[in-house]
Amino acid sequence: MGVRVFAPATVANVACGFDVLGFAVDEPGDEVIMEKNDGKGVRIVEITGDDGRLSKDPAKNTVGVSVLKYLEHIGQPDLGIDIILHKKMPFGSGLGSSAASTVAGVFAVNELLGKPLRQEELLPFAIEGERIACGAAHADNVAPALYGGFVLIRSYEPLDVIRLNTPNDLFAAIVHPKVEVPTKDARSILRANVPMQQAIQQWGNLAGLIAGLYQEDYDLIGRSIEDVIIEPVRSILIPGYQDVKRVALEQGALGAGISGSGPSVFSLCKGEKSATAVGLAKKEMFAKYGIESDLFVSRVNQKGPVVL
Amino acid sequence: MGVRVFAPATVANVACGFDVLGFAVDEPGDEVIMEKNDGKGVRIVEITGDDGRLSKDPAKNTVGVSVLKYLEHIGQPDLGIDIILHKKMPFGSGLGSSAASTVAGVFAVNELLGKPLRQEELLPFAIEGERIACGAAHADNVAPALYGGFVLIRSYEPLDVIRLNTPNDLFAAIVHPKVEVPTKDARSILRANVPMQQAIQQWGNLAGLIAGLYQEDYDLIGRSIEDVIIEPVRSILIPGYQDVKRVALEQGALGAGISGSGPSVFSLCKGEKSATAVGLAKKEMFAKYGIESDLFVSRVNQKGPVVL
Repeated sequence: MGVRVFAPATVANVACGFDVLGFAVDEPGDEVIMEKNDGKGVRIVEITGDDGRLSKDPAKNTVGVSVLKYLEHIGQPDLGIDIILHKKMPFGSGLGSSAASTVAGVFAVNELLGKPLRQEELLPFAIEGERIACGAAHADNVAPALYGGFVLIRSYEPLDVIRLNTPNDLFAAIVHPKVEVPTKDARSILRANVPMQQAIQQWGNLAGLIAGLYQEDYDLIGRSIEDVIIEPVRSILIPGYQDVKRVALEQGALGAGISGSGPSVFSLCKGEKSATAVGLAKKEMFAKYGIESDLFVSRVNQKGPVVL
Repeated sequence: MGVRVFAPATVANVACGFDVLGFAVDEPGDEVIMEKNDGKGVRIVEITGDDGRLSKDPAKNTVGVSVLKYLEHIGQPDLGIDIILHKKMPFGSGLGSSAASTVAGVFAVNELLGKPLRQEELLPFAIEGERIACGAAHADNVAPALYGGFVLIRSYEPLDVIRLNTPNDLFAAIVHPKVEVPTKDARSILRANVPMQQAIQQWGNLAGLIAGLYQEDYDLIGRSIEDVIIEPVRSILIPGYQDVKRVALEQGALGAGISGSGPSVFSLCKGEKSATAVGLAKKEMFAKYGIESDLFVSRVNQKGPVVL
């Protein structure tokens, strides 16, 4: 008897919330299938959709690492588990690809063993998986992938993760242009210092966004989605970015920005119709720049991972 | 027939919300008495509690300026009004002294004329008064003084002011040590740039505080009241600050910080009993440093100005 789990893609940073905010979407996401084997240890028996880029060595794979950490924690380090990973979303897209796999993995193993841990308790293991993928223990993708909705990482030491209210009519239109921006490069071009005035603008906007989520004030959410610190630097790595953002806003997006470290461009919209129009306009604009892209339109995810 | 109005003191910044956040308290505050005269223009006929420091020239007085701007706006620039101002709180204390007077003034004139403007519409005139007092058009004292509760100034250009949810059991214990820190000095010692990592910590905390206010999660409010950017610099100007803050937390304060540009030290507490204990401990600690202080304990104000 095995278990099959879907975990969602995530948009980290959300313009004004660099390193502390993220949300999950209903599509795309990754799938993990897991079943017990007879004492053969943790094995990754199959990976699809990765073009052979991911290691099948559990100690070098984000899913493997988080499952091993989990088994160690619950005192069953030698349990035999076979893992199949179906990558259903692009790498290096800024959509939390490794986080989706990792969260699907820890959620699946916990299901497989009869839920010895609560969903919130799975976060540390997912963060360990993320460390393998990104070289750092970020939580702004894994936390929303695990919890669903908008999630705040108030602090890393100690880890303090807060589920925020997520208005039900909030949809995301995400376009992934097929140019690759490795996370490490996107991070290295950031400045070590920021002008105080820009920091004040940024935290004013983040506070406005949080208030907008609780008040379910879509206009306030839109006015607050502005990034005066990271976007001016990172957008240089995304051809056509300013035009893509402009058409999103012209088509009625509440706001738009770079998803994670890019190159995907997210927009938040009120309602699915608006999100579809916004997404198509962005895809078309990338095409004018000669860039192929994938479009994902879905409700902001409220649940996190699910058993399929 | 005249009108007598009270407007509350305010705590700007609230540790992690420098320049964008403030809240009002029930005590202390200022009082303005206003009545029409027969075409003699705007006159400030009496000021008490200011030790003769405030100008009675309406063009040079925060209350006078905001009332004049208001009258101009509603098309009655030549209306005759007599103003009495009772200062009931200290100057240069970091408690929004000028904002309380200004807000009492614009609220009073609007009452006197039968409320031609809604309460929210009075903000620009109060900001003009604040410009005279502080040399800059800050809103993080006038906005909470006018609206009551916690108020976010998401943006100054354009002005975007958001009333936040304010949990009902939130009390403030404010101690004003009798040492003066002029706002302009407190501002000039701040750095022009901040390390990115500290900016991230600060906006993570501000986001946590906003979420805590909406979720009425007192622990989260407490964990979020932390200031890694301004406090380390400004606290140097307040003798005994670290010890005063320490005893506040030891006595059960949710959090503590510098009120506005200081030197008052605020604490947020759950319930009046806790706030009283915290306030007394802070006052006692200042006394150990040989510093006299005033103590104000009151509920976080929910209403803004009131007619007495």
